[in-house]
Amino acid sequence: MNLDDTIVAIATPPGRGGIGVVRIAGPQARAIALPMLRLKHDLEPARAIFGELVEPTRTGVACFQSPVSSASDSGNQKPETGDSSRIDEVVVNYFAKPHSYTTDDIVEIAAHGSPVVLRHIVELCVSGGARLAEPGEFTMRAFLNGRIDLTQAEAVRDLIDSQTLYQARIAAQQLEGALSRRLRPVKQKLVELIAVLEAGIDFAEDDVSVLPSPAILERIAAVRQPLEQLAATFAYGKIVHQGLTLAIVGRPNVGKSSLFNRLVEHERAIVTSTPGTTRDLVSETVAIDGIPIRLVDTAGIRQALDEAESIGIRKSMEAFADADLVLVVLDASQPATREDTELMKHAEGRPTIVVGNKCDLEGSGHWSVVSGQCSAIRASALTGEGIAELRAEILRHIGGETGAPAEAGFLTNVRHQHLVQDSLAALDAATVAVTAKVPDEMLLLDLYNALRPLDAITGATTTDDILNLIFSRFCVGK
Amino acid sequence: MNLDDTIVAIATPPGRGGIGVVRIAGPQARAIALPMLRLKHDLEPARAIFGELVEPTRTGVACFQSPVSSASDSGNQKPETGDSSRIDEVVVNYFAKPHSYTTDDIVEIAAHGSPVVLRHIVELCVSGGARLAEPGEFTMRAFLNGRIDLTQAEAVRDLIDSQTLYQARIAAQQLEGALSRRLRPVKQKLVELIAVLEAGIDFAEDDVSVLPSPAILERIAAVRQPLEQLAATFAYGKIVHQGLTLAIVGRPNVGKSSLFNRLVEHERAIVTSTPGTTRDLVSETVAIDGIPIRLVDTAGIRQALDEAESIGIRKSMEAFADADLVLVVLDASQPATREDTELMKHAEGRPTIVVGNKCDLEGSGHWSVVSGQCSAIRASALTGEGIAELRAEILRHIGGETGAPAEAGFLTNVRHQHLVQDSLAALDAATVAVTAKVPDEMLLLDLYNALRPLDAITGATTTDDILNLIFSRFCVGK
Repeated sequence: MNLDDTIVAIATPPGRGGIGVVRIAGPQARAIALPMLRLKHDLEPARAIFGELVEPTRTGVACFQSPVSSASDSGNQKPETGDSSRIDEVVVNYFAKPHSYTTDDIVEIAAHGSPVVLRHIVELCVSGGARLAEPGEFTMRAFLNGRIDLTQAEAVRDLIDSQTLYQARIAAQQLEGALSRRLRPVKQKLVELIAVLEAGIDFAEDDVSVLPSPAILERIAAVRQPLEQLAATFAYGKIVHQGLTLAIVGRPNVGKSSLFNRLVEHERAIVTSTPGTTRDLVSETVAIDGIPIRLVDTAGIRQALDEAESIGIRKSMEAFADADLVLVVLDASQPATREDTELMKHAEGRPTIVVGNKCDLEGSGHWSVVSGQCSAIRASALTGEGIAELRAEILRHIGGETGAPAEAGFLTNVRHQHLVQDSLAALDAATVAVTAKVPDEMLLLDLYNALRPLDAITGATTTDDILNLIFSRFCVGK
Repeated sequence: MNLDDTIVAIATPPGRGGIGVVRIAGPQARAIALPMLRLKHDLEPARAIFGELVEPTRTGVACFQSPVSSASDSGNQKPETGDSSRIDEVVVNYFAKPHSYTTDDIVEIAAHGSPVVLRHIVELCVSGGARLAEPGEFTMRAFLNGRIDLTQAEAVRDLIDSQTLYQARIAAQQLEGALSRRLRPVKQKLVELIAVLEAGIDFAEDDVSVLPSPAILERIAAVRQPLEQLAATFAYGKIVHQGLTLAIVGRPNVGKSSLFNRLVEHERAIVTSTPGTTRDLVSETVAIDGIPIRLVDTAGIRQALDEAESIGIRKSMEAFADADLVLVVLDASQPATREDTELMKHAEGRPTIVVGNKCDLEGSGHWSVVSGQCSAIRASALTGEGIAELRAEILRHIGGETGAPAEAGFLTNVRHQHLVQDSLAALDAATVAVTAKVPDEMLLLDLYNALRPLDAITGATTTDDILNLIFSRFCVGK
């Protein structure tokens, strides 16, 4: 990972489009780009220059000669027009070190979005001395050059991968440093405690600690408490990041599909990038308040009449088991059946919303009998009554016990969550150590064990292996 | 198609990438873009400005509120950081009228290549008063505003769609005006002839023409001859534009597949955008000197032994019939069989190359017996001998009778070809009219009929219908 290399990649998504951009970053970016450009003005930092993309002058480009080149090209035309070395019209942006994405010199060539033209620009750059960028390498350079920390680098990937605007906005907060800002005072307190203890060891004349145990415990708790709050945000952050699956279950003809359709049409559908593994179940991913929620409609659950139905019911029960949240649908116009009761029992102890559908019909008072032990909504897929309440109830479940975190900088990333947990575990060990009156030298080991994971979150100390793991999940050109 | 509208579209290809660009063009481009941008400097023509993409100020954006917004946002943070209205970091380019792609004011917002963020920018623009651009509308505006002619507009599409660099370069020549430049003197001569005849009619005192017939015929011929040359370039231009299919046929075990593999590995493979319809035949598209050539390997052709083989042979014969060029492979180490002779007979009158494969083996003199009536190459798929000659022979066939056109500005587009043919037909009619001594008024009708198609090529006179037809084949954002 040589930072003196000049690297190149197509930065725009693959495929055809109006515009495609090739990004060149590194000390030779200008020198490599200029031979293939015929510009109206000299490159100048942060100025967009119109120009032509041309074959660089004659050395070693024989393989790019077209079959109609050579001999008679100059026949009818002036030399400055009808130039067969011309490949495209371009707009070139130059960002001078250190005011660029990577803090290197960067040249961005915006051509027409033609894959062959863009690939050719990359090839010309490579033959001019650039190296193909690894996935995520531009962002990695921004990190290695100290422009952003690791949480910000990861946020770039999350931002690009986001499925909903809310996810993008959370990623943008992290890109701007929200998580790092939240961690900074926590880390500061821990470093201060370590510093005091280290100082005490150096100067202490015997094994007596420089701080009394209650003071140390208090200081550990002061580090621990905000970290625990942060860790608690992950339940919500994970849902924001990954979305959740909501299965709609119930016996036949209670109106599951109507409810499914109501919810789908009410919300904004998300086109998932990975083709759905619907396993013959109808499913649709929608964004409810920016959270991607996969709604799964299932076959009616009852004593199966034949083998085909029994397969369908088995799939419904699997969807039931896999779901993060279950919507048990009852028919509010009829008394609860044994099947209803069994389903409710099955859902016990799991995040469940009970919906009494068909509340527009006569006799819809029955259903209140079966509710009680879990949250229940009266609704009508037919009239739309209760759908807004159902939506609010889904959101309440997503928020979990604590509700949506009020502060910016919550945990959405499994790597961060693990590191926070590691730090908390080390703080637990430290607490035990203090109570057991172990010497400060031993206590310090635990405190360093608590500090290291916090550093790893922002990348203050991280091995190359971890870095490579993180950046290989980027797309090339970022 | 109101040119006073401000239009907006995502200009980069769909999907995720490092960079995605939204293009806004029209009189309100600045006014629409600015409320969502927090820039480090004011917009300035052709200057790339760093900034943040934010939700525009509070009016009417309630639907974009995130679940964590409202109340307690200001808790731990300074107001200028941790701003939940922040969506992305962007680089903004502003191109002031008339120095832009469309000649309108254009603002290009380069965000991270996140589909939800890009879509959101477009939505903000639309709620700010912009209209979603139709496919090709930016380029259409460049045409309607007179910056480029119709051949140049079509070249943009061809450039983006090009599969090989050579195709891209041909499109770039046309984008730069090569075809229009070639047509200009032809049209000029025709207009001059029309002008002379029109003047003659206005001032003539009787039915005698202002020009003697031989002079008119000479002038018509002077228009006709370069147009015919241009029309002749279409045979090659069509191949450059669309590529061709080359079927490799022969009886079993003459080495068709080895030859196929040799050719494929020798050339650069093209990943075709449309999934191949190989009909169980192995095919691969390669670029030979920038021309996309689909090589089709076929099953050995002989008297079928069973039904399965007979199906394979039928498919081989279909590939034979569909191919633009046929490679009949013989075994040069054996005397020609009856099957060889029949295949050669079948290929008569069609573009065919005969290859005597296995020329490295003993007794490879036999094969010269069967050649003679068509071009034939000695080759060895095993040693690679003769492959370069075969490649050259393929290229010679592609060039056709006339060879590759030496001049820039040849015809690659069916629309242009039809219009040139229309013009030639009208010139034929004019020639007949002159010979038949019809009055100049009548002759002029033919000459106008010859002029109109030439105007239609460059779009000097074109109805809205034709324009819409052309531009609807563009991608959105161009």
